Amino acid sequence: MPSPEPVFDTETHVSLQLDDVGRLRHLLTLKGLEKSLLIDILDDAVRYLGPPGAMPVRSRALAGRTVANLFFEPSTRTRASFDLAGKRLGADVLNLDVNTSSRRKGESILDTIQTIEAMRVDIMVVRDASAGVPLYIARHVSEHVSILNAGEADVSHPTQGLLDLLTIRQHKGGFENLIVAIVGDVAHSRVARSAAQGLHTLGVGELRLVSPPAMAPDADEMPFATIVDNLDEGLCDADVVMALRIQRERIGNLDCIPDPDEYFADFGVSLARMKRAKPDAIVMHPGPMNRGVEIEAAVADGPASVITEQVTNGVAVRMAVLARVSKSLQSR
Amino acid sequence: MPSPEPVFDTETHVSLQLDDVGRLRHLLTLKGLEKSLLIDILDDAVRYLGPPGAMPVRSRALAGRTVANLFFEPSTRTRASFDLAGKRLGADVLNLDVNTSSRRKGESILDTIQTIEAMRVDIMVVRDASAGVPLYIARHVSEHVSILNAGEADVSHPTQGLLDLLTIRQHKGGFENLIVAIVGDVAHSRVARSAAQGLHTLGVGELRLVSPPAMAPDADEMPFATIVDNLDEGLCDADVVMALRIQRERIGNLDCIPDPDEYFADFGVSLARMKRAKPDAIVMHPGPMNRGVEIEAAVADGPASVITEQVTNGVAVRMAVLARVSKSLQSR
Amino acid sequence: MPSPEPVFDTETHVSLQLDDVGRLRHLLTLKGLEKSLLIDILDDAVRYLGPPGAMPVRSRALAGRTVANLFFEPSTRTRASFDLAGKRLGADVLNLDVNTSSRRKGESILDTIQTIEAMRVDIMVVRDASAGVPLYIARHVSEHVSILNAGEADVSHPTQGLLDLLTIRQHKGGFENLIVAIVGDVAHSRVARSAAQGLHTLGVGELRLVSPPAMAPDADEMPFATIVDNLDEGLCDADVVMALRIQRERIGNLDCIPDPDEYFADFGVSLARMKRAKPDAIVMHPGPMNRGVEIEAAVADGPASVITEQVTNGVAVRMAVLARVSKSLQSR
Repeated sequence: MPSPEPVFDTETHVSLQLDDVGRLRHLLTLKGLEKSLLIDILDDAVRYLGPPGAMPVRSRALAGRTVANLFFEPSTRTRASFDLAGKRLGADVLNLDVNTSSRRKGESILDTIQTIEAMRVDIMVVRDASAGVPLYIARHVSEHVSILNAGEADVSHPTQGLLDLLTIRQHKGGFENLIVAIVGDVAHSRVARSAAQGLHTLGVGELRLVSPPAMAPDADEMPFATIVDNLDEGLCDADVVMALRIQRERIGNLDCIPDPDEYFADFGVSLARMKRAKPDAIVMHPGPMNRGVEIEAAVADGPASVITEQVTNGVAVRMAVLARVSKSLQSR
Repeated sequence: MPSPEPVFDTETHVSLQLDDVGRLRHLLTLKGLEKSLLIDILDDAVRYLGPPGAMPVRSRALAGRTVANLFFEPSTRTRASFDLAGKRLGADVLNLDVNTSSRRKGESILDTIQTIEAMRVDIMVVRDASAGVPLYIARHVSEHVSILNAGEADVSHPTQGLLDLLTIRQHKGGFENLIVAIVGDVAHSRVARSAAQGLHTLGVGELRLVSPPAMAPDADEMPFATIVDNLDEGLCDADVVMALRIQRERIGNLDCIPDPDEYFADFGVSLARMKRAKPDAIVMHPGPMNRGVEIEAAVADGPASVITEQVTNGVAVRMAVLARVSKSLQSR
Repeated sequence: MPSPEPVFDTETHVSLQLDDVGRLRHLLTLKGLEKSLLIDILDDAVRYLGPPGAMPVRSRALAGRTVANLFFEPSTRTRASFDLAGKRLGADVLNLDVNTSSRRKGESILDTIQTIEAMRVDIMVVRDASAGVPLYIARHVSEHVSILNAGEADVSHPTQGLLDLLTIRQHKGGFENLIVAIVGDVAHSRVARSAAQGLHTLGVGELRLVSPPAMAPDADEMPFATIVDNLDEGLCDADVVMALRIQRERIGNLDCIPDPDEYFADFGVSLARMKRAKPDAIVMHPGPMNRGVEIEAAVADGPASVITEQVTNGVAVRMAVLARVSKSLQSR
């Protein structure tokens, strides 16, 4: 009588993310987190950024703590970013190769988590292809453990959202008067969802989700955003343009998506199309990029691109989040 | 003229495990180690355990030392446990992906070991699917290196044995008056062998090996234990029940083993069956568990289960062993 | 319009390897580096070697620095050697599993590099199966990053060359009066090329490249060396004999290479053949060895062998190179 596959509840529970005194305990989603908390995290992250070429800022905020990277879905950049963030805060970092197949075959996800927890791991950084897994884990770990969502199906990728917010704030100063266009496969993008939620909380002027119909989110999912199915319209006067990769691995019927050339012609962020945006518009991309599909090489590598800054900000934001949840851990 | 495949001698050599002045140098097997040494290791491990939720105990006992995890057989939990144990003692930890196939194709095992040794690695943690490999390596490394067996075929898994002893002692105070039942695939279990050897040395009251005939050890292998082929009889008045996973990967003819439902009916440790044991009996499992096969979920997750404590004790025991062999290293 | 596959230029650019004030910035190839620089590195490496059995020499030369091991080709020993070298200098070490297939599918090599760079990695250790990749990367990274070549196609493996030089100097005192024979698959060997270039710069007495015609380098590639197609002739009065593994993975038509027994008979470094060399000749091999093919077990494991010393020297040489490029980093 094996225990039944758990049903993962994707409903978010803000209350679970905060401890008794309102400090960040888990980071599962940006949805529902207060504006002041998001701003505090961004301000912390700025402190972890030093000048280019200087040695990265380090601290001992996590000395004696153990961070486990539990990636049930492959990752190079996010895994590396959390790895460095943990090490630069003085943590012991445990990188675990856990592939979903072995997890499903034998041991249940809870057994894996309880085993890691029993080794006195303080913070688990979890990536999973199934919606609801980080929340499910957060609900079941002991009070001595914090869970950080490092990418969850097409649902949430909150540290990516935070690094996007930080990058926009660095370049534009604030959010109130901005037009932000997220372009491409929004429907299957956890990056788009987390960025949209954060932008909404921070009071973005206007948020446009620019996709072909097959890649557009449901109309009622993000009522604070405008869904646009035309790139020229979507980019018009935009201050920030975020291009997305097509998430082929999450699309059921690949016959429904256009071929790369056609897609580039209609939704590729090119120099020509960018003329519709504001002259000082910045271009973002979560990586990895497919030049010539969702973004033109001349844009990706051009002066408007802030893509490598996003990566740098990613380490700083993750340091800020790790340090913040460790403060909550201390008092438990 | 390639050198012939080495013949691994599975005979244990206690003398090899101790240095000139009787300190632990290698840990290959619990068989033949003195009671006082086992107790000293358990006492050390207790010192490495802090209260739940407190930061794990750390020391600099291995500062400047290098520990290499050489896992020729896949492992997540034991590898992670040794990784954390080494880091919490201040060692540099080198995790090596070495798969058996590549080892057999080209380089001999001794070349691999001598290469790692030449990089000034002090302690090698070795897991291998072939019997005799840890002893073979211990015989051939220089006097400056210690070998710790992290799982050897169906022969030995001494740190698992030690963590089992520690867990039993924590709950039962001692061993003399205990009835311990090890239930399941004893024949193919290195966990069972190491636990049995340690329990024997520590003077366990009664040790029962409870298996279907196809999974029972040879009658003369562990003469100090009673072989029982009936679960109710095996659990009767037991103080400690250790359930084992069926080691499918080590069973030649899988047709000879019953199907999971049948196995559970006959040898599954269930709440109903546990009524035969003492009311305060504890239930152990080395993990990963297959609920509904060798153990019922209600037992695994119930109040009698000490399974996650075993994992916590595993890190502490490995810290104790690492610190102990490093004392022997200092004087060489 | 994906960007075209980059054309890797294998021409070496010494000037790129040195910074404005002539310090080592990148290590791509030994070709063209000055004798005094090579000797300085060897002298530094000696300081990182302690007596056998003593704890390895450590320093904080790289404290606060991040070293990323980017191995696009599998490696155990070189990766482990750089890992330990970085850790023993106090660096944070990031080990990245990057396989060439995924790199070619999606993200371009430059995106990978720029992503890693943006995480504030100071030193990237790169191994790649394609000629020109380390140079290509070095040309494109920011001024705050150093690139170390850890093996490049059949072109260059400079830290291996340095460890070979150090091992020879330890045993022979110098190079001027030596006869060095590199034996085997020279044509496909980056090890042979780097050793040959270093030996040439340090003024070796005589360098012989001893191969069957199918494995001999082009006659004009290394004009300072003598190409010999007969082992007895090649070993005659040699002070140093370096045996090479047949690089099957780099040989197009495997039908052209002799079977192992035939190869051993003609070009295997055996005790019998070694009688032609000087009585105190040393035997080297970069590993992994195929005993009975390019080297006889009795030679590999005999008194003339310095093969494990090469491995020990490898860590020391890599520490010396890491520490040296970090000095250049400080002033950028």
